[in-house]
Amino acid sequence: MKRRRDFIKLGSALGVSALMSGCSSSEKTKSFHINKNKKTILRIATSWPAHFPIMGEGIERFAKRLEIISQGTLRVKVYPKNLLVPALGVFDACSSSAIDGYHSAAYYYKGKNEAFNLFTGFPFGFTANEINAWIDFGGGMDLWRELYAKYNLVPFKGGNTDIQMGGWFKKEIKSLDDLKGLKMRIPGLGGEVFAKLGVRPTLLPAGEIYVALERNLLDATEWLGPSLDTKMGFHKVAKYYYTGWHEPGSMLSLVFNKKRFDSLSDEQKMMIEVASNELNSVMCSQFQVENAKQLKVVEDAGVKILTFPKEVLIAAKKAMLEVADEKSQKSKDFKRVWESAYSFLELNKRWTDIGLKAYLESR
Amino acid sequence: MKRRRDFIKLGSALGVSALMSGCSSSEKTKSFHINKNKKTILRIATSWPAHFPIMGEGIERFAKRLEIISQGTLRVKVYPKNLLVPALGVFDACSSSAIDGYHSAAYYYKGKNEAFNLFTGFPFGFTANEINAWIDFGGGMDLWRELYAKYNLVPFKGGNTDIQMGGWFKKEIKSLDDLKGLKMRIPGLGGEVFAKLGVRPTLLPAGEIYVALERNLLDATEWLGPSLDTKMGFHKVAKYYYTGWHEPGSMLSLVFNKKRFDSLSDEQKMMIEVASNELNSVMCSQFQVENAKQLKVVEDAGVKILTFPKEVLIAAKKAMLEVADEKSQKSKDFKRVWESAYSFLELNKRWTDIGLKAYLESR
Repeated sequence: MKRRRDFIKLGSALGVSALMSGCSSSEKTKSFHINKNKKTILRIATSWPAHFPIMGEGIERFAKRLEIISQGTLRVKVYPKNLLVPALGVFDACSSSAIDGYHSAAYYYKGKNEAFNLFTGFPFGFTANEINAWIDFGGGMDLWRELYAKYNLVPFKGGNTDIQMGGWFKKEIKSLDDLKGLKMRIPGLGGEVFAKLGVRPTLLPAGEIYVALERNLLDATEWLGPSLDTKMGFHKVAKYYYTGWHEPGSMLSLVFNKKRFDSLSDEQKMMIEVASNELNSVMCSQFQVENAKQLKVVEDAGVKILTFPKEVLIAAKKAMLEVADEKSQKSKDFKRVWESAYSFLELNKRWTDIGLKAYLESR
Repeated sequence: MKRRRDFIKLGSALGVSALMSGCSSSEKTKSFHINKNKKTILRIATSWPAHFPIMGEGIERFAKRLEIISQGTLRVKVYPKNLLVPALGVFDACSSSAIDGYHSAAYYYKGKNEAFNLFTGFPFGFTANEINAWIDFGGGMDLWRELYAKYNLVPFKGGNTDIQMGGWFKKEIKSLDDLKGLKMRIPGLGGEVFAKLGVRPTLLPAGEIYVALERNLLDATEWLGPSLDTKMGFHKVAKYYYTGWHEPGSMLSLVFNKKRFDSLSDEQKMMIEVASNELNSVMCSQFQVENAKQLKVVEDAGVKILTFPKEVLIAAKKAMLEVADEKSQKSKDFKRVWESAYSFLELNKRWTDIGLKAYLESR
């Protein structure tokens, strides 16, 4: 019965627990109110260009399906990046009620609060199914709701990129020494970890990475996986592609202005939650198949796919624990969320090794 | 744009494609009709006991949430096994319109059509994310809808058990020879594969397995994973627990009577689809965490967790291809679905190895 309570707790974070536990009796169903003349329109901005593959398609599909299941009473208007607000201005715009919601990734806003990194994921951390489990059944959502409430925001799962690759390198990495001084485009905790190993992490606008790589102004870049990387053309200018460690199942976030969200009916809140869970799962499946298709393009281009040497992985894992320790000392919020996420990971890793990993090694 | 069309095709299988593509213009929203006095009640039977952990909880949660998002206009009444119809009588009862729907697993009904095996999964086949990708983006749903339509049924994804373990053995399996003559409870394609290796597959009612193992009337049994296996007490009577190969990501099915389903509004159809996708994903996350928790119980009981010897796995994989070949020769439906599923698997396996497997080995 523990599981049941966990889920109802998830509902209660949404203010719908009474409705959830009561709705199986027919008396209670009479309390539903439908007013077809009352249409709610929510304007949400994204961090992606219009019709951006998979991520952009995902949020547009969410909007269409939400409108249908709400029987036309709840409409989400999706604005691509820079139309209403800049790509990374969505957090502030939503917090201040300039927009009703946004579709983005939590770690982009680590400047607001270091703990936000962890609601996207972390190096050597959760797979997609593990972060979903932490959010829904491991206390992750309670922490996320609590921290975002301070910024007048209500978050939902908004999709998952599945495993991200470790990046494109112009030269093979044979040892820890080969990383020293490398200029690499790598954001977030992955960048902080690599910095500890001597890499010089750099942030470049998307449109400048290819040329920088081509002209040797950049030695390496990570992006996502074959699905989106081939669209950037990286396989044409870097011949070593490394398997992933730094973003093993990055979760996107669908976030609403709290005041606006609180003004919705309990039924509308539940529609958003149910549709966001669909979005979260279907996006991950779409990344699976698009990565598989584009991997052929990568391999046909003669790219060498390698895993980092063991000494690099061991050093990176150690560096990640140091980064977490340093951030825990500076930020109480980071410490709380890290302790929750890391202990959940430790519990779940053993099962994932016995279950999924052993299977993939047997297949 | 291929992906976009794929998804709309999925919508069109539901008869909602016009609605999906049109719903972003505000004019079209006026065509939605809401009649709060018209309540639709769907009676669905399950193959599980009342409140059965994870699977039963999942379908009950689906019903509650569907009622809320439909604003009380669509109510699913869930009946546990044997209350309306026997656990495995749900397919026929739904097909003949005696009930409106059911929650079960497709492979239970392979007697109707061998192809149904594949809509649950198959040995050395899809992980949970891979089967979702095949269903939504690889043509799987089109085939499933087409085949089920012949039986007056409309299927949806209904949850996923995640990786299932290879089973409990009273003695260690050190070679192929050790399998010969073993009496094992193992259903489905897994049983057919193991039969080719000399195992004698047996089906026993759930309540009889523990005692049969204890009294050495049974040498081995598979069930699911730690989450449900410890509730059966198997860790007390068998000391070898093998990692999985035969059900690597079994998908459950939520199925409706086609005539009844066709009578629903397009909006109601979409509510069912969206909520079933949530059910499918959240159940898989719940299995993740419950397996992780119960794995501790298994290990604390001193059970040895092992992977089958390489020669067993190689022989089983070969036997699976023989089983598929034999069934393809006997059943055109099986052949079509197998060719779709197997070619999708071949495409996706390479990415899963480069992405997920390489990550799990690096973590």
